[in-house]
Amino acid sequence: MFPTKKVQTLIGSTIQVEMKGDKHTLQGKLESADEYLNLHLMDTYEVVDGVKSRSLGSVILRGNNIIMLSPVGE
Amino acid sequence: MFPTKKVQTLIGSTIQVEMKGDKHTLQGKLESADEYLNLHLMDTYEVVDGVKSRSLGSVILRGNNIIMLSPVGE
Amino acid sequence: MFPTKKVQTLIGSTIQVEMKGDKHTLQGKLESADEYLNLHLMDTYEVVDGVKSRSLGSVILRGNNIIMLSPVGE
Amino acid sequence: MFPTKKVQTLIGSTIQVEMKGDKHTLQGKLESADEYLNLHLMDTYEVVDGVKSRSLGSVILRGNNIIMLSPVGE
Amino acid sequence: MFPTKKVQTLIGSTIQVEMKGDKHTLQGKLESADEYLNLHLMDTYEVVDGVKSRSLGSVILRGNNIIMLSPVGE
Amino acid sequence: MFPTKKVQTLIGSTIQVEMKGDKHTLQGKLESADEYLNLHLMDTYEVVDGVKSRSLGSVILRGNNIIMLSPVGE
Repeated sequence: MFPTKKVQTLIGSTIQVEMKGDKHTLQGKLESADEYLNLHLMDTYEVVDGVKSRSLGSVILRGNNIIMLSPVGE
Repeated sequence: MFPTKKVQTLIGSTIQVEMKGDKHTLQGKLESADEYLNLHLMDTYEVVDGVKSRSLGSVILRGNNIIMLSPVGE
Repeated sequence: MFPTKKVQTLIGSTIQVEMKGDKHTLQGKLESADEYLNLHLMDTYEVVDGVKSRSLGSVILRGNNIIMLSPVGE
Repeated sequence: MFPTKKVQTLIGSTIQVEMKGDKHTLQGKLESADEYLNLHLMDTYEVVDGVKSRSLGSVILRGNNIIMLSPVGE
Repeated sequence: MFPTKKVQTLIGSTIQVEMKGDKHTLQGKLESADEYLNLHLMDTYEVVDGVKSRSLGSVILRGNNIIMLSPVGE
Repeated sequence: MFPTKKVQTLIGSTIQVEMKGDKHTLQGKLESADEYLNLHLMDTYEVVDGVKSRSLGSVILRGNNIIMLSPVGE
């Protein structure tokens, strides 16, 4: 299964996403994703040193600035 | 609803956008957006430590340099 | 009006462009722009702390390295 | 054999991947890869100073943020 | 004239190119350029503080990592 | 000859490649290259301060993260 297809299987699940920039890690429920890995997350939190920090709500992430993403608790 | 479609629903609303670079956060009214997430914002402000700072007026943002965006007050 | 279309309306006007890198701001007359936001500026200056600095003349800017651009004095 | 084709031959093998950012090296079993070098790794570990560190499990890596990848033990 | 077309008119001339990274400026004779602004330069030099430094000979530059380019002496 | 075509002529030769990140220079034999400048190098070495350092063997480099490349000894 191609990587972008694998991401589709994670819709509805909680994922962690590491973005470019100063060690920017987000956690939220994956609402939707497209072929560029643009993501729509709900109930999003910043995660700092493994702890949920600032609440961000509904956010859109630009795919090309995603370093990696993984399901939480898999 | 795909992430870029979700962004279309935010046209006319105030959004916050985090750009690449030195923690560059902008807030403005979303005037238009295309499939690459290039954005046109009106009444734009830089936001520093959560406080509106420098006024920028009408700005065009290059989509690939957007880390994330979110509606304000959602 | 899409963001790239908005940029077309600025041809012939003076714009400020913030590039990726060390807070690199340029000001010049927009000669041409394409769909990728590659830009050709004339009479270009670096702007440091809001003051015109080094003169650069005619420059080509690669669109993907533009953070944002805005008309001067709008 | 084109570089992306070469990557296809590594599916099922353990690879090391260096990502953009703060010397971010990952090691895992290559589950799938597409033409953009988006990768799906299983049993993934961060590698710090050549030593396996934090376990990350199943991760998706965005191709454009890969600096380089190589088979382990080739 | 579109920016990429303008670059075509510079073939055979000496140009300066600012690359991403640590203030990386190169000067050389533009041998060829494509629509992505990938460039082939001949007789290339690094330029440090406005002075020709290390000689690099024939180099290929990846377009997306070009910040800006300009003709020398225009 | 377009830049990507020029790179094709280097297949089988030893090249130096400067990657994005902390002054990351690699040297190896160019095995293959595609239109995005994704590269497959054999017998690859990191080069630090002009001296061959860590041996990396067979590596795939993602084209968009290449700053520049040049033939060795041309």
